[in-house]
Amino acid sequence: MTSTATIADLSTAREVARQLRVDSVRSSTSAGSGHPTSSMSAADLLAVLVTRHLRYDWDNPGNDANDHLIFSKGHASPLLYAVYKAVGVISDEELMTGYRRFGQRLQGHPTPVLPWVDVATGSLGQGLPDGVGVALAGRYLDEVPYRVWVLCGDSEMAEGSMWEALDKAAYYRLSNLVAIVDVNRLGQSGPTELQWDLDAYARRAESFGARVLIVDGHDVDAIDEAYTSATNRTDDRPTVILARTLKGRGFSEVENLEGWHGKPLPAEMAQRAIRELGGESDLVVRGPQPPDEQPATRPAPREMPDLPRWEVGEKVATRRAYGDALTALGGGHPRIVALDGEVGNSTYSEEFAKAFGDRFFEMYIAEQQMIAAAVGLSVRHYVPFASTFAAFLSRAYDFIRMASISRANIRLVGSHAGVEIGADGPSQMALEDLAMLRAVQGSTVLYPSDAVSTAALVRAMVGLDGVSYLRTTRGAYPVLYDQGEDFPIGGSKVLRSSPDDAVTLVGAGVTLHQCLAAADQLAADGIRARVIDLYSVKPIDTATLRDAVAATDGRIVVVEDHHPEGGLGSAVADALLAAGAPTLRFTHLAVRELPGSGSTAEQLGAEGIDADTIAGAARALTS
Amino acid sequence: MTSTATIADLSTAREVARQLRVDSVRSSTSAGSGHPTSSMSAADLLAVLVTRHLRYDWDNPGNDANDHLIFSKGHASPLLYAVYKAVGVISDEELMTGYRRFGQRLQGHPTPVLPWVDVATGSLGQGLPDGVGVALAGRYLDEVPYRVWVLCGDSEMAEGSMWEALDKAAYYRLSNLVAIVDVNRLGQSGPTELQWDLDAYARRAESFGARVLIVDGHDVDAIDEAYTSATNRTDDRPTVILARTLKGRGFSEVENLEGWHGKPLPAEMAQRAIRELGGESDLVVRGPQPPDEQPATRPAPREMPDLPRWEVGEKVATRRAYGDALTALGGGHPRIVALDGEVGNSTYSEEFAKAFGDRFFEMYIAEQQMIAAAVGLSVRHYVPFASTFAAFLSRAYDFIRMASISRANIRLVGSHAGVEIGADGPSQMALEDLAMLRAVQGSTVLYPSDAVSTAALVRAMVGLDGVSYLRTTRGAYPVLYDQGEDFPIGGSKVLRSSPDDAVTLVGAGVTLHQCLAAADQLAADGIRARVIDLYSVKPIDTATLRDAVAATDGRIVVVEDHHPEGGLGSAVADALLAAGAPTLRFTHLAVRELPGSGSTAEQLGAEGIDADTIAGAARALTS
Repeated sequence: MTSTATIADLSTAREVARQLRVDSVRSSTSAGSGHPTSSMSAADLLAVLVTRHLRYDWDNPGNDANDHLIFSKGHASPLLYAVYKAVGVISDEELMTGYRRFGQRLQGHPTPVLPWVDVATGSLGQGLPDGVGVALAGRYLDEVPYRVWVLCGDSEMAEGSMWEALDKAAYYRLSNLVAIVDVNRLGQSGPTELQWDLDAYARRAESFGARVLIVDGHDVDAIDEAYTSATNRTDDRPTVILARTLKGRGFSEVENLEGWHGKPLPAEMAQRAIRELGGESDLVVRGPQPPDEQPATRPAPREMPDLPRWEVGEKVATRRAYGDALTALGGGHPRIVALDGEVGNSTYSEEFAKAFGDRFFEMYIAEQQMIAAAVGLSVRHYVPFASTFAAFLSRAYDFIRMASISRANIRLVGSHAGVEIGADGPSQMALEDLAMLRAVQGSTVLYPSDAVSTAALVRAMVGLDGVSYLRTTRGAYPVLYDQGEDFPIGGSKVLRSSPDDAVTLVGAGVTLHQCLAAADQLAADGIRARVIDLYSVKPIDTATLRDAVAATDGRIVVVEDHHPEGGLGSAVADALLAAGAPTLRFTHLAVRELPGSGSTAEQLGAEGIDADTIAGAARALTS
Repeated sequence: MTSTATIADLSTAREVARQLRVDSVRSSTSAGSGHPTSSMSAADLLAVLVTRHLRYDWDNPGNDANDHLIFSKGHASPLLYAVYKAVGVISDEELMTGYRRFGQRLQGHPTPVLPWVDVATGSLGQGLPDGVGVALAGRYLDEVPYRVWVLCGDSEMAEGSMWEALDKAAYYRLSNLVAIVDVNRLGQSGPTELQWDLDAYARRAESFGARVLIVDGHDVDAIDEAYTSATNRTDDRPTVILARTLKGRGFSEVENLEGWHGKPLPAEMAQRAIRELGGESDLVVRGPQPPDEQPATRPAPREMPDLPRWEVGEKVATRRAYGDALTALGGGHPRIVALDGEVGNSTYSEEFAKAFGDRFFEMYIAEQQMIAAAVGLSVRHYVPFASTFAAFLSRAYDFIRMASISRANIRLVGSHAGVEIGADGPSQMALEDLAMLRAVQGSTVLYPSDAVSTAALVRAMVGLDGVSYLRTTRGAYPVLYDQGEDFPIGGSKVLRSSPDDAVTLVGAGVTLHQCLAAADQLAADGIRARVIDLYSVKPIDTATLRDAVAATDGRIVVVEDHHPEGGLGSAVADALLAAGAPTLRFTHLAVRELPGSGSTAEQLGAEGIDADTIAGAARALTS
């Protein structure tokens, strides 16, 4: 093993590049899967970066002053892992026996199971948007001069999200962001759209506000100059380095040829490749250390701030309660940040923005970038809340899914849930969001019905790990709970209960208020109903549900302002069946017909999720 | 009423513009909601378009030669409906009593409930991508010179999908597409990102390959010239017209002021606005008729072509069966078209592409545009199949949701479902897709386990309305069914059954094969298991499931390669509970832990969805 204390020279970088190629071939061949050719195209780019420009304390990946390295082209994981060997943080043995193996950390695409990986990548077009979030934190919150280096593929430049990212990088003047685009001309199934038209890429990136440098991606001197230029900035634009490269560079049998995407070389061919590339080596070379500067201290508070207060019976929209609660919390918790998709006056994130403009990031109508920025901010240990109309979170589902794989701690808030919104019509109605968010691994899904519970849940979300989601309602409804009531995640509230209950009614959000009205109607008929506020949809309060159906002879009506699949009804059904509930007489009221415009009352009535329908369903079950 | 037979002059267009503004104010004030100011900014643009350039047979919206008019800024519906009055297809009474009212067709955002509306809009950044699909049909399939005019908002230019659209419009040389961007500078909650920097917009649109014209959006002469230029083309680029406008144009109390987005004018203010705008009118003016040319005839065939054949026991991946089946069907059905997100060699859409290159549209890695193009193609009555990795359909969930509101007939095919894919890791694994697609209103969700059923279901999808989804598997598994077996939508197959069955096992895709292996294990122990192939997840075969649980004393194991929420298990639970099933002993095996890399067998085993775990669960239920 060789090790250098000073910055490596370019000939060393060339040697490292050679080794990165050899190791990309070796690891993928040993695993029998992977993307060696997509790694080989970017080997020179990475060799120069990690030996001479990336300021990273490899012995301490938690060093707040470290630069960040994100592989937006996550399929080039052989290259990334070869880099880890070249800086001495993983062994050759791990590379050769761990890559893509079960239970190992060198997965097919990088995830933060590895301490040097910020975010999971592999769904293309996400690493750069995530990097924008990290760079936002660096420039506006940490105020530390770390740089964010993102290796991008050329194919992924077809994703609109990459342009959302460059747009926001320019808007927020992220000169600490460097996107390196490995233009190897070949996608998975054939040539890319723009192939080697680097001028076309350049025009696009420049028009979006980036400074563009074009290099030969195999010319180590040129790469080095470009990196130097990217880091010695006289303006405040992000940098895009367009590197013309050859896929499979260095091995004549695959170099620049179609048909070699995502294919490991067969063993014999790999031997020829290693020979042509100059043989195996175990060079260890480290690049520059980060500066000593550490981030501005923004500690989490010892005690959470007080929440706003409301009186029982007062009519307050839960979306407004969200804005008020977040603002109250933000006052005492300096790591809370908020983002919105240009509808802050509807989601009420504008309250937070007015109070803490330096911790609010307007993402305009770019929901994918909004979620990615939240992920990037969570990498830097901030506590992001990202809000828009719940319907429009569907725009970013792939980003939410990937956030869960990244184990990012992000908080999503979707307003204007369901047909309750009334006149705006179905395009603005979230009717799939509960299904979408419940299906995310490790997620928390919350759906409060009043202001007091909303505020309590927002406070709880601050401390939650993973992807959490709060569904809020457009209209104002009466406050149901006393100030100070506890709303544990995974809990529920029994709002009506007696020893004579004949039926259980379960609702959340607007339908809880309908359940309460239905219970009043039923009481007038002499039928007692137990009413449950299922504010925590995931995790769910199975014990309370099981007790309720046991007490009401299996009779239960679940009502939701959501499509029938995957929402409240499914959550209750899944919980009761898993708990081995008795024979159920289960009525599920949900939004089954395509809605149009109309008043809230008309919409709830037409879809059969209003008090009258609930009472009717309960009567049918008890008759 | 006035009517003109010849093309209106510009002074008439000015009169129409005035009326469009007045009617936008009147309808939204009458409804008490809506977006008059966003309508007023674009009134001149629309007046010139509909009186002098849009070639549209208003008496016959089904005329195949008609131009297409899409409001990508769907919130400007008052303007669109005012246009409908101005061309005489709706009455002033409908405008004043129908807008945003329950049960009426003039919804808050336009939907194809109206015969002149191609696609539902209102989720921003979708109308232009949809228009690309319509223009693709015009240029490559219909071969009729209709034009596609799309009114875009400036706020929505922040959506990456708009750039995916321009990119594809240029790549496919869609000179029949004209995007009119109403740059009124003000978004919902404040100024837009680029405000009136029309040069910035122009640089971006040009860099993406469009021809750009900049106009004063209130200068009727300039607008007219721009439209003339857009339609007299000497090159084959799409046109982007950037129009500098004033939000609320024409009424001094709101013009160019913040705080008036999405707000109807109060009644008194509306009176002042109408007065300032010159008063009410009922002008009816029609523009030019479409040419007589009709589309190339591509009729649906009388009989569906034969499907490929496989032998029972032969190992075939369902993704490959999809490609083979689609190619076979395409040979006899000229309206079938296919799209892919640059992974056609993985989804096997490349088989279709090789056979019918003129009906295959490579969308590169732009899933949002892929779905939108499918929607646009369905507007023109083609039969689109759009494929990518199932995981990446999550990228386009908002587009799929909107497609259902558009009542578009689109067919989605997602390959590489679940942990079955093995080494690539979680970023490539679809584990939320069943939940996501089931929650779409009116959707059909199919998940076949072998090649024969896959082919049969692909054939059935050709005739399906709405959004349908086929989930395919990476690996090759034995063919289970004889050629010619029937697979009705909403059906299932009972593969193992006896009078002594003690437990029901339900699977689909890879887990069906695991259920069959588990049944063999159980049989060795003397436990008979009924095995159901639930290839139709939505609609679901409730009767067969109910009979099975009745026959097996309520004992059922449902196994899925998907997260526990919203997929197969939920579908079965929902169906059985709705059917009033007996007391269930329900075991649900699903992917509960975040997977990594590994072999298929390791992944299935680790998540507890393999034959051993299924057999163990069945034993536990029967002991």
